[in-house]
Amino acid sequence: MTSPSPAPAGPRTVFIVSDGTGITAETFSHSILAQFETRFRNVRIPFVDTIDKAHLAVRRINDAFEAEGVRPIVFTTLVDPVANQVLRDAKAMILNMFQTFIEPLENELGLKSTHAIGRLHQNADTEAYKNRIEAINFSLMHDDGQSHKNLAEADVILVGVSRSGKTPTSLYLAMQYGLKSANYPLIPDDFERGKLPSALLTYKSKIFGLTIDPARLSEIRNERRPGSKYAALENCRYEVNEAEAMMRREGITWLSTTHKSIEEIATTILQEIKVERDY
Amino acid sequence: MTSPSPAPAGPRTVFIVSDGTGITAETFSHSILAQFETRFRNVRIPFVDTIDKAHLAVRRINDAFEAEGVRPIVFTTLVDPVANQVLRDAKAMILNMFQTFIEPLENELGLKSTHAIGRLHQNADTEAYKNRIEAINFSLMHDDGQSHKNLAEADVILVGVSRSGKTPTSLYLAMQYGLKSANYPLIPDDFERGKLPSALLTYKSKIFGLTIDPARLSEIRNERRPGSKYAALENCRYEVNEAEAMMRREGITWLSTTHKSIEEIATTILQEIKVERDY
Repeated sequence: MTSPSPAPAGPRTVFIVSDGTGITAETFSHSILAQFETRFRNVRIPFVDTIDKAHLAVRRINDAFEAEGVRPIVFTTLVDPVANQVLRDAKAMILNMFQTFIEPLENELGLKSTHAIGRLHQNADTEAYKNRIEAINFSLMHDDGQSHKNLAEADVILVGVSRSGKTPTSLYLAMQYGLKSANYPLIPDDFERGKLPSALLTYKSKIFGLTIDPARLSEIRNERRPGSKYAALENCRYEVNEAEAMMRREGITWLSTTHKSIEEIATTILQEIKVERDY
Repeated sequence: MTSPSPAPAGPRTVFIVSDGTGITAETFSHSILAQFETRFRNVRIPFVDTIDKAHLAVRRINDAFEAEGVRPIVFTTLVDPVANQVLRDAKAMILNMFQTFIEPLENELGLKSTHAIGRLHQNADTEAYKNRIEAINFSLMHDDGQSHKNLAEADVILVGVSRSGKTPTSLYLAMQYGLKSANYPLIPDDFERGKLPSALLTYKSKIFGLTIDPARLSEIRNERRPGSKYAALENCRYEVNEAEAMMRREGITWLSTTHKSIEEIATTILQEIKVERDY
């Protein structure tokens, strides 16, 4: 299918050619190329939604080939058959993420694909999109216990000590999944009272806890407020112990964010709150 | 390669099976299935990082087949060859996003892939990840002109009238690309003075403008403050005209967000500010 090229001197150039933003294709290519212990130079060519733009993309790809002496790798999600035909003439290895899977799917489903350009990217004029924007605004307004208003609307309420990862996770859940996510810090006042913040008591079923290794927490807090009591390991140990004890007592599910990315935290939360959506 | 199944009565079940979060695979599958005018039921099975979990995934897939009488579609990014072997026995159509592209890439690059599990998902312990978290915090602290501190560190400063899309775009740039993004509202005070907010004058080269159709703006503002002067079409027209005149005068590049998603806005901004990263 492809013949080996000689190993290049510099990083191999990788093009992402898409009729939309190319973000999904770029993330995917990034993931798969991480399986190779070599470096790549990444060039995304988005919005290739005319034949002229396809020709321009081919020119850029061929220029890279001439300059580097080794053919670039192209990940593409172009839908238009004519644009794909144009792209096939580039001096490059073409990995077509669209065509590779669409034909077997057509056979499996017994349906023809619509070949609709733009379907491969997020559309701003849909209900789902408006929900995402609304969820982002909700999460911002309900960041760090700022507002008790409309908590009944929240899909999830994150709790945890300061700097345990609540804010980025809330925003990610909103941005990626359109989930209205509030977050509340658990603070020494709560530990002395031995109770969850009272605003939360009626919503216990949608509370999810984040915890973190005290040493890591101390590191993170020291970047913000070096040498403070807030950041001291002893204090971090106290807060984390108290927070975990409280969550245990209240029957709140929690996870440790210490070595987890936002995406991993969000995925775990989604599994717990069992959100499954049709589309 | 695959034989057609009879058309199902309900929505066809689609599984995403991943050894990481499966978010990229899910987004991709969502995009490609949007090419078919039928409905799908979406089930993500993340963190399949042992052979036992692969067997559990197969059981869930087979259960869906039994219950629905039509074989599910499985998008997978499993890296482990043994886990893939287990998955192949499922009563399903398997679309392997990993294996499909890894072999041609091995030939092209003259390298063996590392088959490293977990490389396909974001890792929380890298510099790049820390930069993303730092960028999210920066963008939150510099939302809506809240802080003039450390603007020198910003990668981009978004300006535009209230509700033109600055906040979600800033957060997206931070979350997806680790870009430190500040945003400043352009308000009637600025229009009367006929000048950009003074804190921004030294950073003109990294300012990017967002504008929006006044009728759409009025709609959005009316959801927030129904019947207000702020939301009135006449006032929206005034603000948008003034903001565009100011951006033109100051030589600021801008785009209209009216029919654009956050992803499209962010992609256009990245093209303008020409951020290209190796990885």
